[in-house]
Amino acid sequence: MREDFNHEFARVSGTLVTMAKAVRETMRQAGAALLAADPTLAQQAVDRGVEIGVLHRVAEDRAYDLVATKHPAPAELRMVLTAVNVAADLKRMGELAVHVARSTLRRNPAPAVAPELAELFHAMNAVADELAGKIVAALAGHDAVLAAQLDGDDDEMDRLHTRLFSVMLSPEWPLGVEAAIDGALLGRYYERFADRAVNVGQHVMELAPA
Amino acid sequence: MREDFNHEFARVSGTLVTMAKAVRETMRQAGAALLAADPTLAQQAVDRGVEIGVLHRVAEDRAYDLVATKHPAPAELRMVLTAVNVAADLKRMGELAVHVARSTLRRNPAPAVAPELAELFHAMNAVADELAGKIVAALAGHDAVLAAQLDGDDDEMDRLHTRLFSVMLSPEWPLGVEAAIDGALLGRYYERFADRAVNVGQHVMELAPA
Repeated sequence: MREDFNHEFARVSGTLVTMAKAVRETMRQAGAALLAADPTLAQQAVDRGVEIGVLHRVAEDRAYDLVATKHPAPAELRMVLTAVNVAADLKRMGELAVHVARSTLRRNPAPAVAPELAELFHAMNAVADELAGKIVAALAGHDAVLAAQLDGDDDEMDRLHTRLFSVMLSPEWPLGVEAAIDGALLGRYYERFADRAVNVGQHVMELAPA
Repeated sequence: MREDFNHEFARVSGTLVTMAKAVRETMRQAGAALLAADPTLAQQAVDRGVEIGVLHRVAEDRAYDLVATKHPAPAELRMVLTAVNVAADLKRMGELAVHVARSTLRRNPAPAVAPELAELFHAMNAVADELAGKIVAALAGHDAVLAAQLDGDDDEMDRLHTRLFSVMLSPEWPLGVEAAIDGALLGRYYERFADRAVNVGQHVMELAPA
């Protein structure tokens, strides 16, 4: 690969790492705000989500400029388009974190998560943070091994998601329809967040040197 | 624009039109299967979803080949990358239609939609089909006017989605938690389907000749 291309591509990659860090931080704030029913923290997550949207445009513009000005070879082109896909996944992960934060704002001052579900969402927060942390590290180090681990972490999220539904659907569920709907939609945001993280992992494996 | 580029780009566009038709048909089958609690029709929708995935790869490969072999000018490059974005949105719409179909299969032989919600989902099916039909027509004709209408249709879906929740959360809701969770998740699939349709509309406006 040409020096020139590599230099420009490193700028695109750098923006992806910045995006991934912002996604991790947004989900961390959104998850903490959810469990603490803290509207100030939830609003911070929403604001940070806006920054992720800006970073997404920066990443796309840099990628398109690179293609337009450097006439990349086919293998280089694949790398750029993979980076564009990763940027789209990270943007969506940021939007899902904002959905979590908005649930807290919508129910404020009541908590959006029923006490019966707090432990499960605590565990889902931990998995989401681990996934996001691995994405940051994998993108920063082009680390295919780390990226491959994301699939296993997603399995853990799926297990938690299944348990969430079994709790809400058990005859002992004391909290009625509204709390269950909140729980179901929140569970779906976390599940989609993890799905997108796995997508990113697959893309990073394509980007990593063989 | 060069004749050569236009010829190749028309092949990419043609694949998008085929994809959009398949998405429309999949959502139509999934929606009909949902209201009729018809597992055979639901399975057909799932199978058609697989075809959409294949078409997505064809569209992406054609787009990447075009960039690699034709060295598009910057304005041409934007068009190709916009087409790649449209393909991703259509793929996701197909996945959401498959989610609707899977709900029918999961609850079979019981209906996944409570009788109390049938009318609302009937209306959501109609909006989804109208959105998908406009996407097909807009992509086939590069019609920016039609594409711009998608935003208004999405507002209608949002209204239906809001009504769905108010029905499930009213004190008169007779059906308990499981039916409400099904309703909430199905509602979200339709809402996301409409969101993605609006995305496609915005992209088609970028593609249309000024």
